[in-house]
Amino acid sequence: MYVIIAYDVNVDRVNKVKKFLRKHLNWIQNSLFEGELTQADLEEVKMGLREIINEEEDMVVIYRLRSADAMKREVLGMEKSSMDEII
Amino acid sequence: MYVIIAYDVNVDRVNKVKKFLRKHLNWIQNSLFEGELTQADLEEVKMGLREIINEEEDMVVIYRLRSADAMKREVLGMEKSSMDEII
Repeated sequence: MYVIIAYDVNVDRVNKVKKFLRKHLNWIQNSLFEGELTQADLEEVKMGLREIINEEEDMVVIYRLRSADAMKREVLGMEKSSMDEII
Repeated sequence: MYVIIAYDVNVDRVNKVKKFLRKHLNWIQNSLFEGELTQADLEEVKMGLREIINEEEDMVVIYRLRSADAMKREVLGMEKSSMDEII
């Protein structure tokens, strides 16, 4: 499946979340990652995120799509990561 | 169509972008909006965003889905906006 993850976490935990997600997904921009994951990978990602975040303060939104074809991505402005690495 | 917009813009323009997107979409969390738009609405949103952002510094990612059914949203932690308002 294809996964988009956007997070809004306390500044104390931002780098931890980013570092963790980098292992599993592609960085798109500040607080936004994407990538192909298996169901097992996703469970691992969710478990890891739950260990890092404070569920009373932080919020992580996970969008699951059947595949990358289910969406079209368009970027306005400057591409902060190289889209070549992503697609 | 269903649209997810995530932005990473200079702090000087964050509130302007947020205020503008609130008119068209539902706020999910910091720098993340979603909602149903027509093609014409989307063009209006893109035009408005281009007027606000600095394309050399800021980045806005727009994901277009055929419908909200094309994705499943899951939230870890605290829901910052009421999901009732969104769905």
